[in-house]
Amino acid sequence: MSDILHTLEVQLPLPEVDRSYPIIIGRALLSDGAFWQSLIAGRGVILVTDDQVGPLYASTLKESLGGVSQLTEVVLSAGEARKDMASLETILDAALKDRHERGSLFVALGGGVVGDMTGFAASCFLRGADFIQVPTTLLAQVDSSVGGKTGINHAMGKNLIGAFHQPTQVVIDLDTLASLPEREFAAGLAEVIKYGLIRDADFFEWLLAQVGALTARDGDTLAYAIQRSCEIKASVVAEDEREGGVRAHLNFGHTFGHAIERLQGYGEWLHGEAVAAGMVIASQISVLRGTLDASIVEKLIAFNRAVGLPVEAPSSLSASDLLQAMSSDKKVSSGKIRYILLQGLGEAAVTEHVTTDDIVFALSA
Amino acid sequence: MSDILHTLEVQLPLPEVDRSYPIIIGRALLSDGAFWQSLIAGRGVILVTDDQVGPLYASTLKESLGGVSQLTEVVLSAGEARKDMASLETILDAALKDRHERGSLFVALGGGVVGDMTGFAASCFLRGADFIQVPTTLLAQVDSSVGGKTGINHAMGKNLIGAFHQPTQVVIDLDTLASLPEREFAAGLAEVIKYGLIRDADFFEWLLAQVGALTARDGDTLAYAIQRSCEIKASVVAEDEREGGVRAHLNFGHTFGHAIERLQGYGEWLHGEAVAAGMVIASQISVLRGTLDASIVEKLIAFNRAVGLPVEAPSSLSASDLLQAMSSDKKVSSGKIRYILLQGLGEAAVTEHVTTDDIVFALSA
Repeated sequence: MSDILHTLEVQLPLPEVDRSYPIIIGRALLSDGAFWQSLIAGRGVILVTDDQVGPLYASTLKESLGGVSQLTEVVLSAGEARKDMASLETILDAALKDRHERGSLFVALGGGVVGDMTGFAASCFLRGADFIQVPTTLLAQVDSSVGGKTGINHAMGKNLIGAFHQPTQVVIDLDTLASLPEREFAAGLAEVIKYGLIRDADFFEWLLAQVGALTARDGDTLAYAIQRSCEIKASVVAEDEREGGVRAHLNFGHTFGHAIERLQGYGEWLHGEAVAAGMVIASQISVLRGTLDASIVEKLIAFNRAVGLPVEAPSSLSASDLLQAMSSDKKVSSGKIRYILLQGLGEAAVTEHVTTDDIVFALSA
Repeated sequence: MSDILHTLEVQLPLPEVDRSYPIIIGRALLSDGAFWQSLIAGRGVILVTDDQVGPLYASTLKESLGGVSQLTEVVLSAGEARKDMASLETILDAALKDRHERGSLFVALGGGVVGDMTGFAASCFLRGADFIQVPTTLLAQVDSSVGGKTGINHAMGKNLIGAFHQPTQVVIDLDTLASLPEREFAAGLAEVIKYGLIRDADFFEWLLAQVGALTARDGDTLAYAIQRSCEIKASVVAEDEREGGVRAHLNFGHTFGHAIERLQGYGEWLHGEAVAAGMVIASQISVLRGTLDASIVEKLIAFNRAVGLPVEAPSSLSASDLLQAMSSDKKVSSGKIRYILLQGLGEAAVTEHVTTDDIVFALSA
């Protein structure tokens, strides 16, 4: 028997208010045929997964899809390095060769890479088809499954080509977390603690108190951590779907994190690991500027250590390396780098006034 | 001195009502530096054109762009056969390598192929940048520059990959029509007369009366023909941006036309030529079904002959060839082919009830 623990409705702002969608959090959802039949409602399905997640869960999901009118399965090579135009074409070619119509549904079974590519493929398939996200990593569950950002990487940087395209449903089956490698699980927790830092002091403190239960992957603890993370991200996205204002706060730790990823070469550090280090740097700069109590940075570092996340940038990277890499980030507006700092625990703000000295100090702190 | 003859505001329906945009029709607009400076307003520009149109007009436009902060020029190989993923990547690579930001503007200088690809590139560049259409063919001016459809072709068919992405402005400089080859000019007139057939009986009769002035490319006559065509398309799109209902009427002649293009091989007949033949077939079926007076078909055939457009499908194609090709058209919904027929001059309607016998009759009429 499956068990739906929580359903959260993601409200979108104008002009897309009619495209809100539910995030369904539960257990044993992948094997619940009746649940899937009601979601699919007789439509054709293009099931996209990768060669790590597919062998674990695709057959269960396909059984639940049962007598779907038309089923195309696409199994991509796993990994951020394959989040490229060639993989996008693989998905589109398969859907077009099987003559799917605009009414068919794309289903993304996997982590953020599969979700981002499937969503982008759906957005441009016959100029726009529906898709369901089935995120199987903690990171994808709390981050990329909410907000409608889809896309692929380019030699010039990550996520430079893509679309805003909302899923029609997000299905989070907690059971899929059991198979997640430890490093990837920890990388997801980096985004979870981020929500506390930028928006919810109580949630931050709760996470610190639950660090043992979290690393033990206790079901109820994870369910609440995911639910609260999705609620916070959904509320930010509802205020600002396209990143003109408050949505930028979600990039806390990401400006530094992206720079670390680029300098290391993608795949060396996981995205969440780079963000974890980036959040420590951004928090230290916040302390330096007098808006954040130093005890918060200490708590963040303790959390990162407890769950197995980095607490600083790789020592091989200098402040000028980081600045150079950040200046080519796509979030650069009119040549100025916008940093997200903390105005206190649970409160983020955007500033362009961070100096090289600030960064040097934070890196040496 | 440039001369703006008409500005038409394209209103979009909910949920995109805030994304309406003007179509500016005039003479000598490409060489009007002040006009372009006000449009660009200091932003970076990615100018996309092809190797037929570029040599004629790109240097004039670049001079008008003058001291634009950042200018990237992309010159594609001309032709429908190059409306593909490789060309899309050429545009995106150039924009990314020159480190354009989300605030840069794409400018599409050329026919429908350049416009569709540039619009699609803009839609997925950093998940969405603005673009200006500068259509230089009659077809692009009256058809592809209104409605927000962008995209590329795929081995399985035309326009199968793309996005709905509205331009911020459409700039129609009538002077560009002087250099248009005769066949392409006639192909544009096919779409012009279509608007009369499906929506405006008076416009249809006016076009018949003006056939001499049209083929002589008289400026004022063309200005009104383009303006009225854009008005009609814009009013249809405003009612139904994403093709759920009345927008399908714009496909009058296109179901047969696309089939002819596919069977002939793209590039053999121009799109407008195939549509011209398709409109005759659809009109003849309408006569057969008793909803259209036979005199209208005779007038349409006379118009096509006068301007140099086909009046029937290539004799090498059988009715079963056409049916086969149509059944794989992306507009097929749930396996049923939807035909647009005329309920009278100036009034179109959708039906799924066209038999093979109807088509055989129309082809032999």
